[in-house]
Amino acid sequence: MEPLAEEWPRMRPGQILFTYYHLAASRELTEAVAATGASCLAYETLEVGRTLPLLTPMSEVAGRMSIQAGAKYLERAHGGSGILLGGVPGVKRARVLVLGGGVVGTNAARMACGLGADVTIMDLDLDRLRYLDEVMPRNCRTVYSTPLAIREHLAHADLVVGAVLIPGAAAPKLVRREDLSILKPGSVIVDVAVDQGGCVETCRPTTHSDPVFEVDGVLHYCVANMPGAVPRTSTMALTNATLSWTLQLARLGLKDALEQSQPLVTAANAIAGKITHKAVAEAFDMEYVAPAVALASL
Amino acid sequence: MEPLAEEWPRMRPGQILFTYYHLAASRELTEAVAATGASCLAYETLEVGRTLPLLTPMSEVAGRMSIQAGAKYLERAHGGSGILLGGVPGVKRARVLVLGGGVVGTNAARMACGLGADVTIMDLDLDRLRYLDEVMPRNCRTVYSTPLAIREHLAHADLVVGAVLIPGAAAPKLVRREDLSILKPGSVIVDVAVDQGGCVETCRPTTHSDPVFEVDGVLHYCVANMPGAVPRTSTMALTNATLSWTLQLARLGLKDALEQSQPLVTAANAIAGKITHKAVAEAFDMEYVAPAVALASL
Amino acid sequence: MEPLAEEWPRMRPGQILFTYYHLAASRELTEAVAATGASCLAYETLEVGRTLPLLTPMSEVAGRMSIQAGAKYLERAHGGSGILLGGVPGVKRARVLVLGGGVVGTNAARMACGLGADVTIMDLDLDRLRYLDEVMPRNCRTVYSTPLAIREHLAHADLVVGAVLIPGAAAPKLVRREDLSILKPGSVIVDVAVDQGGCVETCRPTTHSDPVFEVDGVLHYCVANMPGAVPRTSTMALTNATLSWTLQLARLGLKDALEQSQPLVTAANAIAGKITHKAVAEAFDMEYVAPAVALASL
Amino acid sequence: MEPLAEEWPRMRPGQILFTYYHLAASRELTEAVAATGASCLAYETLEVGRTLPLLTPMSEVAGRMSIQAGAKYLERAHGGSGILLGGVPGVKRARVLVLGGGVVGTNAARMACGLGADVTIMDLDLDRLRYLDEVMPRNCRTVYSTPLAIREHLAHADLVVGAVLIPGAAAPKLVRREDLSILKPGSVIVDVAVDQGGCVETCRPTTHSDPVFEVDGVLHYCVANMPGAVPRTSTMALTNATLSWTLQLARLGLKDALEQSQPLVTAANAIAGKITHKAVAEAFDMEYVAPAVALASL
Amino acid sequence: MEPLAEEWPRMRPGQILFTYYHLAASRELTEAVAATGASCLAYETLEVGRTLPLLTPMSEVAGRMSIQAGAKYLERAHGGSGILLGGVPGVKRARVLVLGGGVVGTNAARMACGLGADVTIMDLDLDRLRYLDEVMPRNCRTVYSTPLAIREHLAHADLVVGAVLIPGAAAPKLVRREDLSILKPGSVIVDVAVDQGGCVETCRPTTHSDPVFEVDGVLHYCVANMPGAVPRTSTMALTNATLSWTLQLARLGLKDALEQSQPLVTAANAIAGKITHKAVAEAFDMEYVAPAVALASL
Amino acid sequence: MEPLAEEWPRMRPGQILFTYYHLAASRELTEAVAATGASCLAYETLEVGRTLPLLTPMSEVAGRMSIQAGAKYLERAHGGSGILLGGVPGVKRARVLVLGGGVVGTNAARMACGLGADVTIMDLDLDRLRYLDEVMPRNCRTVYSTPLAIREHLAHADLVVGAVLIPGAAAPKLVRREDLSILKPGSVIVDVAVDQGGCVETCRPTTHSDPVFEVDGVLHYCVANMPGAVPRTSTMALTNATLSWTLQLARLGLKDALEQSQPLVTAANAIAGKITHKAVAEAFDMEYVAPAVALASL
Repeated sequence: MEPLAEEWPRMRPGQILFTYYHLAASRELTEAVAATGASCLAYETLEVGRTLPLLTPMSEVAGRMSIQAGAKYLERAHGGSGILLGGVPGVKRARVLVLGGGVVGTNAARMACGLGADVTIMDLDLDRLRYLDEVMPRNCRTVYSTPLAIREHLAHADLVVGAVLIPGAAAPKLVRREDLSILKPGSVIVDVAVDQGGCVETCRPTTHSDPVFEVDGVLHYCVANMPGAVPRTSTMALTNATLSWTLQLARLGLKDALEQSQPLVTAANAIAGKITHKAVAEAFDMEYVAPAVALASL
Repeated sequence: MEPLAEEWPRMRPGQILFTYYHLAASRELTEAVAATGASCLAYETLEVGRTLPLLTPMSEVAGRMSIQAGAKYLERAHGGSGILLGGVPGVKRARVLVLGGGVVGTNAARMACGLGADVTIMDLDLDRLRYLDEVMPRNCRTVYSTPLAIREHLAHADLVVGAVLIPGAAAPKLVRREDLSILKPGSVIVDVAVDQGGCVETCRPTTHSDPVFEVDGVLHYCVANMPGAVPRTSTMALTNATLSWTLQLARLGLKDALEQSQPLVTAANAIAGKITHKAVAEAFDMEYVAPAVALASL
Repeated sequence: MEPLAEEWPRMRPGQILFTYYHLAASRELTEAVAATGASCLAYETLEVGRTLPLLTPMSEVAGRMSIQAGAKYLERAHGGSGILLGGVPGVKRARVLVLGGGVVGTNAARMACGLGADVTIMDLDLDRLRYLDEVMPRNCRTVYSTPLAIREHLAHADLVVGAVLIPGAAAPKLVRREDLSILKPGSVIVDVAVDQGGCVETCRPTTHSDPVFEVDGVLHYCVANMPGAVPRTSTMALTNATLSWTLQLARLGLKDALEQSQPLVTAANAIAGKITHKAVAEAFDMEYVAPAVALASL
Repeated sequence: MEPLAEEWPRMRPGQILFTYYHLAASRELTEAVAATGASCLAYETLEVGRTLPLLTPMSEVAGRMSIQAGAKYLERAHGGSGILLGGVPGVKRARVLVLGGGVVGTNAARMACGLGADVTIMDLDLDRLRYLDEVMPRNCRTVYSTPLAIREHLAHADLVVGAVLIPGAAAPKLVRREDLSILKPGSVIVDVAVDQGGCVETCRPTTHSDPVFEVDGVLHYCVANMPGAVPRTSTMALTNATLSWTLQLARLGLKDALEQSQPLVTAANAIAGKITHKAVAEAFDMEYVAPAVALASL
Repeated sequence: MEPLAEEWPRMRPGQILFTYYHLAASRELTEAVAATGASCLAYETLEVGRTLPLLTPMSEVAGRMSIQAGAKYLERAHGGSGILLGGVPGVKRARVLVLGGGVVGTNAARMACGLGADVTIMDLDLDRLRYLDEVMPRNCRTVYSTPLAIREHLAHADLVVGAVLIPGAAAPKLVRREDLSILKPGSVIVDVAVDQGGCVETCRPTTHSDPVFEVDGVLHYCVANMPGAVPRTSTMALTNATLSWTLQLARLGLKDALEQSQPLVTAANAIAGKITHKAVAEAFDMEYVAPAVALASL
Repeated sequence: MEPLAEEWPRMRPGQILFTYYHLAASRELTEAVAATGASCLAYETLEVGRTLPLLTPMSEVAGRMSIQAGAKYLERAHGGSGILLGGVPGVKRARVLVLGGGVVGTNAARMACGLGADVTIMDLDLDRLRYLDEVMPRNCRTVYSTPLAIREHLAHADLVVGAVLIPGAAAPKLVRREDLSILKPGSVIVDVAVDQGGCVETCRPTTHSDPVFEVDGVLHYCVANMPGAVPRTSTMALTNATLSWTLQLARLGLKDALEQSQPLVTAANAIAGKITHKAVAEAFDMEYVAPAVALASL
């Protein structure tokens, strides 16, 4: 889902590339982009209104997968406390705490509810909580997020899902190292926000081949690219979201497409090798060229 | 719903009365019955298989009302802790513990779920818990009842509904006086089993005009005849259940009806003034006459 | 939930008070505020867009409580018709008519549905009715509100909830005195809009200690401060809504906070004793000072 | 789904036929069966316990179809009152009255609920009503069936489904001719019990090609073989139910199969041409031979 | 629901007519309007924001009816494949493909889900699909619409509902003639978009009296005015939507009403006989007069 | 959850052991039991009516876990096809085929539905399918099980759960080796019946440490003791089911308990070292002693 290093040299002037880039995270890739003279539109910066619609599908997949991962690592053999999310009749259900009621959190909560757990979803946006109260299954409670409320709920949680992402900013550290001692031994934390630093202080990115580590008796699952595990679903979800933009580029060509579509302009990280995204240029102290200027020279 | 004292003298030989009696609770009423020579069939002892179908409608009404009563006495002005059963979005829900998963308990739990509370229903019958797990709303959990589990859940409960009735026996004391200290101050107990002694040790029957009392900071609501508060619903419910028996008596007359219907025999407490129900006769050391013998002499 | 009279003298210059005021309803309080030189921000006038977000939590609580109150006063002993909201299997359910599909009405309807009643919710906003049709339980019908439709539904209603509030205006009188004769004897009206004059003509504010009165055989429950009965829930709900504003005031101080936040300006009824809210100034013919002017003099 | 007349001569001695027969309704068919010497097992008399499991699938299909038919004939062009079963948001739903809570009635009610109507299901079996109250959608009410309750509900019904079948007996006439005047003009009655005489007095069997007639302004839909309209579904449903019996006959042969299976004995209407079903023999004053006797002579 | 030809001469100068017109479809009607000097406001062009709120009620009714029609024509006797939408327990359900997730499609899908079918709803708007995923019953799947996905789903569909309408434009042809061969014989297409040319290439408008035709073994139901079949529901739905506009016209008179309400201006097709709607004027090469100009001359 | 080998020598005459034994599977254990003279009551043979209530809790846990396991092995990194069970809005869901509608299958289907998959449950018991149709979520279809239907559904399944267990018999082989080629590559089979030989021909027991193997491109998950992975839940579930029997044994002692409780007799595999269970005695050609005889000699 990310451009492979060996593919870079193949980019050529005149080419338009439309994919995930995360240029700000790699000087090497950014310089290669500049050197080839290609035009690079990045999924992750394409904005419509204040939303990032090409990140949403991955958030949906990651949110849903977080519960599968959590259920698995709660198994005793994987180091968890050995509780089944939904319990069985007569035996208490596990408690799932979902931090954040956005796309990731809502999808996580829905899956946890579906498996029969007792679910609490926390957020600072009361209107969002009101909507969730109307459409979520009845075993999902909504609670306004405060440091106190988080700690109270951590004490009872078997599974914690970190789902607080603030576009373009590091995720806030809602669970700190000292909070881990509140959790029961064998509890599991799945931090879906790990890409942006995580909303749990003790999280650091892991991989599908070595997905978990333990801190203070609590399992941490922090795979950075969770959707990569279900490529059939993820690819379809991503394609659904990118198709209309791709068609627009194909029909109009780069110049006309960007002139007619502001969202495509927000996606443009490089035009003909010139860096047209401020944050990327600043990250590596490279020259920033306004998209309109770069387009005019095409 | 009970025959008024002033009505007794009006009973006459040859008359058939079919209503609630509870003769074993009143020597005066029993002797009056014997004196009149009337035939008295009691709703509360009519058995079909092992069920008491003329008690079921009252259990349904009482179970549903128990939550209305509990919600009301949780209000601060009535002495309760001031919590709303369903909370509101962002604020935690109250917890309701229902002891017993029979008719009363299921109806209570369904209403509490409907108001949005976190509900736990306890019972000893695992097959019943499995069925409830399939048909109850998702905010109803089922837990196998043990003394330990009861105490664990009392610690978190805002409202406790006592709904354990064992036909023909005193209700077991599932909550003892010393358990009250586990409950939060301002919690409310509604004991629907109070007619049979209550499943909460500190309960004693109260009336609609003076329904609650407080013990150790916990409100007790123990109105003995809860369905009496909603007579339009209760009367319809009761009539639905008694109608077919009444028609049978009216069509066939007492003698033929009892010869053809074993359930009506179980209802017969007195036939032509002879006490034909063993427990009643024993209660007051009166002569017991087998129904068949009493019928033969008609 | 309202500042007590004996607390007024304690307000001092330089103090910032952020709470419910309703100054326009009390010359005494307004003059005291002016005399102390304190700055008073009122919850009830804080606007975000066209909403009043610090009134919403109280509407949620009141809406949910209206059904508890209605269920209680439908009991025969309290003067109601003696019907149980949800009926029982085989016996018809009570009918609940909710006038208004906003926050109060939706919360009322949801609780009534949860108790198993037959619920009709009326509103003039078709798009709102469409949304409710999608998310409400199946025993909630939506009906477009016309005088004719209201009268048709009054004829069958056991419980009527008045839930029409128009921000900053008197509630429209949807049920008039002559309409009471359409209702069945023993029906109950709960008018949640009573704070703003009520949407039922015969309503006047009552208190938790004397909550109901009867007109033409219909019980009226019109407690002006319903959420006061469940302070544990109401306080949490209110704090969730006010917390972020309180923090903003605490972090920035009054001057900076109001300069950065337009909603806080709409809350400002008095700044350093100067009346900065037009409606309040006009109500008592006092001098109005624009907030910016008053702030500049701090 | 019924043996065609021209097929009768093809039946031969030694043959086993297992299908719907309804011999008691046709002397011609019964005599033909006797003449051929074939063995005829009838789906409609096969009993397991007190149920007729090979009629159930057709009842399921007919119950579900009754609502489709009702919805269609409520259309104005077909003579109905022009109401849509589920209404739309803001417009009242149609009311559907289902007489009988067995297989037909439950399937009818479920479909009507699914289309968004206000549904009432009536039955005399309170335990059945209690179960339906637990598993049916919330827009389905249960009401105990009395002549009074039926008439009260007829006055509001847009669609009435007759679904009362008593195995082996004529259906009771729950709606009489004089009751039609209670119904609104343009209302529709679908009588699924028409095969057994109908539970609506004015019903008489109709066909798919001429399905409805009108009496006193009320449309009557009384197609005797409703499942015949959806043969793909009906055939699968029937085959699912008959397969295990067919396999048993095929594996064991007639004699052994009947010796091992009491339900197959109840299905046997003729064995080697001898009439082995009492009701059939009596209907045409033919000789009855006990199945065991007939089998012994094979 | 459309003005009858014989009514035109009765229009008089000074009159205001507010109804469905579709002037652009009839030179005769347009010229008559101009000749009478009446003012004609058309439901179908009244815009609020980008919505057409006086078309919405008809879309709701048509969407819900499309499933009733589809279920009926799937019956064998009507030429369909003989499958019951919801199947029965043990027998597979029919599959319903709904093209378009707007008002028509959502209402269609909800009814199909209610009847127990396996439903797929397709749309290009991912945010809409996300909302539907949250509020629709669980037997409704959402799929992003592409030509490939449509063809894949056509292969399994028993019933296809065309529900793609683009305001003011011809509906896109999502199903082409050659796609019909993918469908199973006896499948049914209901094209609700037929008013705007249909989203199925082989569709052409039909009437309630002759509603279906067959192409390549597939039944086409394309009644142009489906809501006309349920006038009691449709009239109420329409009146609910038009009432407030009608009252505004009645209270203010034409001139003031149009000066105060931009939506009423968009509805104005003719003012005092002058054509004030550009598309209508252009359609017949008549003179266009701006509404403000026409109003000034009143 | 099974007695460890090193524990055997510790069994002593007079001791009563009540646990899982599976003696018929181990001559060594059976002979040890006989040698010690202990009395051994086996959970797995305790019968109430025709049910095995001490196996039910493990079936519930295993059924629920089967979906967690299936979801995990469908991930690409684990060898699966990379599909997410519930898909996301706009992307198709995975299909889950559950073979068997008993305790295991129902619990599996409920979890799969909760995760948003398209679920089909197959069984031979039509009454069971009818019940499931009433209480299962709407994305669960019921299909009558035939070899043809199984193969048709295998072709579309992403996950197959084998849940057919016949008490006391080897599970039938519903999926044969040659059927694997019908499945899509990367599909997953979870055979919960593996303890009894499996209902999938290619299954053989695996362990939590090496849980899967691949045959013909299809992953097989066949862990024999699935509940062992969630001991906190499984132990509670088992204890709930065994507690009342344990108490009975403790209160009455072995002799009286068995004389009063037929289910405990069915559990008795050895009494004072004598083999009192026929199947066990026959398995190893040991002497069978009737329980009553063995008890008499105590």
